Amino acid sequence: MLIGPDAPIAFESKLRGSHMAHVYDFYKPNLASEYPVVDGKLSQTCYLMALDACYKYFCHKFEKLEGKQFSINDAEYFVFHSPYNKLVQKSFARLVFNDFTRNASSVDEAGKEKLAPFASLTGDESYQNRDLEKASQQVAKPLYDAKVQPTTLVPKQVGNMYTASIYAAFASLIHNKHSALNDKRVILFSYGSGLTATMFSLRLREGQHPFSLSNIASIMNVGEKLKSRHEFPPEKFVEIMQLMEHRYGAKDFVTNKDCSLLAPGTYYLTEVDSMYRRFYAKKPKEAPCENGAVANGH
Amino acid sequence: MLIGPDAPIAFESKLRGSHMAHVYDFYKPNLASEYPVVDGKLSQTCYLMALDACYKYFCHKFEKLEGKQFSINDAEYFVFHSPYNKLVQKSFARLVFNDFTRNASSVDEAGKEKLAPFASLTGDESYQNRDLEKASQQVAKPLYDAKVQPTTLVPKQVGNMYTASIYAAFASLIHNKHSALNDKRVILFSYGSGLTATMFSLRLREGQHPFSLSNIASIMNVGEKLKSRHEFPPEKFVEIMQLMEHRYGAKDFVTNKDCSLLAPGTYYLTEVDSMYRRFYAKKPKEAPCENGAVANGH
Repeated sequence: MLIGPDAPIAFESKLRGSHMAHVYDFYKPNLASEYPVVDGKLSQTCYLMALDACYKYFCHKFEKLEGKQFSINDAEYFVFHSPYNKLVQKSFARLVFNDFTRNASSVDEAGKEKLAPFASLTGDESYQNRDLEKASQQVAKPLYDAKVQPTTLVPKQVGNMYTASIYAAFASLIHNKHSALNDKRVILFSYGSGLTATMFSLRLREGQHPFSLSNIASIMNVGEKLKSRHEFPPEKFVEIMQLMEHRYGAKDFVTNKDCSLLAPGTYYLTEVDSMYRRFYAKKPKEAPCENGAVANGH
Repeated sequence: MLIGPDAPIAFESKLRGSHMAHVYDFYKPNLASEYPVVDGKLSQTCYLMALDACYKYFCHKFEKLEGKQFSINDAEYFVFHSPYNKLVQKSFARLVFNDFTRNASSVDEAGKEKLAPFASLTGDESYQNRDLEKASQQVAKPLYDAKVQPTTLVPKQVGNMYTASIYAAFASLIHNKHSALNDKRVILFSYGSGLTATMFSLRLREGQHPFSLSNIASIMNVGEKLKSRHEFPPEKFVEIMQLMEHRYGAKDFVTNKDCSLLAPGTYYLTEVDSMYRRFYAKKPKEAPCENGAVANGH
């Protein structure tokens, strides 16, 4: 991350709402395994509760600062920590439901009518109610298409990137909308299991070359990177995952040193010796690999 | 750590020498085990090489700042990262050997004579030479007794505290010498395997109550804490270690909840459930434990 004056992406540091709680929703207690222990239902409820809490503090800060009620319409885009897209849809619908209960301007009369049956649910009930989920997603649909859909490209195409997912979503937005982001507010919701969450706000502007949004979009080159991916049959994927599980934390092995699919300049593991010491090689810039394959990275 | 004005323990931030290197001397690659992988001989050589490098930079900084050569005599005490006392003795002797090769004032004529046979050793040779080790420790003995011995109490009594060992050594110094530390310079050598090391300098003064050295010494209460330890036969120690190894990273067990040896107010583990979730209880202030034992902590 580069920090400097006249940034094209600036934090609105007074607009920030945070929430923490001690929960076992998604964690890695088994150090010998690469995989986490996940309580899926709890994790989703925790995420939505954290979203509610952060949004509440965020709105409070905005209202103190600006002297008027905040609504979803006060931001152009919403970017979420994105383990899977369905949760992003639910989350944005949850913000719309929040605006409904707050009587904020983003929900029109038709929307209010659809959500009215759920107005008296307790918080706990509302997290489990499928009808509310469906109704609020319906009401949210036009706003979701305008304010969230442009942020979903990379998380949908790549799958769960964990910590990186919020920035993969933000990169998707810059990729899709770079020429239309000048002076726009973007609100991000960051979530880490365990848990700690923050909703924060960015103000974008085109900026000066080379630190302009259009140059950032061009250098990220998201479209080409997605296109340059390689397709594998599921059997090959399973085989690679099994090798990875077998070698996680292991010693005394050499890799096949096949770097044909790596980008030029990438470091890759060649060996872990009997003392667990790790050895790496670097793929040359546009030159043949050790196994004779020709470099074809991005 | 409390930071504030008129501190009794102040960093001399211009006097600092650091050194880093990529080495596998002591590391924890096996995440399922609590124990590290150690290359003992390499680790000791790395420690001494890092000490030499840090001392060189430290002396250089001092000389640029003060316009005169640094010698061991310019500091009252030397505090080391202390995995075991023998290494502390070797390290201080190594500084004396450095002063000898630098022709610094801390080594007298008798010392120079004893060290002369080793003047032409290469760096690598000097780390392995037992005769040099013996001779330099002999020459260093009076300085060690004055400048290092008062820092060794807790590390010697408690054993290897790893990261904490340098501050355990520093606490020993304050415990032993608090009334004689006013306006004294103390040099610390911090080392972490892997490796990164820094030699840095503190200037002490008595300070104002409650932040005075004598009050710090009184509150640390090192003497009483050492005295209040409980003696166990080796068989019991082995039994406890086996239980710890068995439970490291494990799930689905309850502990015996015996908190008779814990200090009042201490949190202790009572259970790890089938999902690896951990549960704790807190020992009350001066009240009976769950198992009926009477609190007898420090």
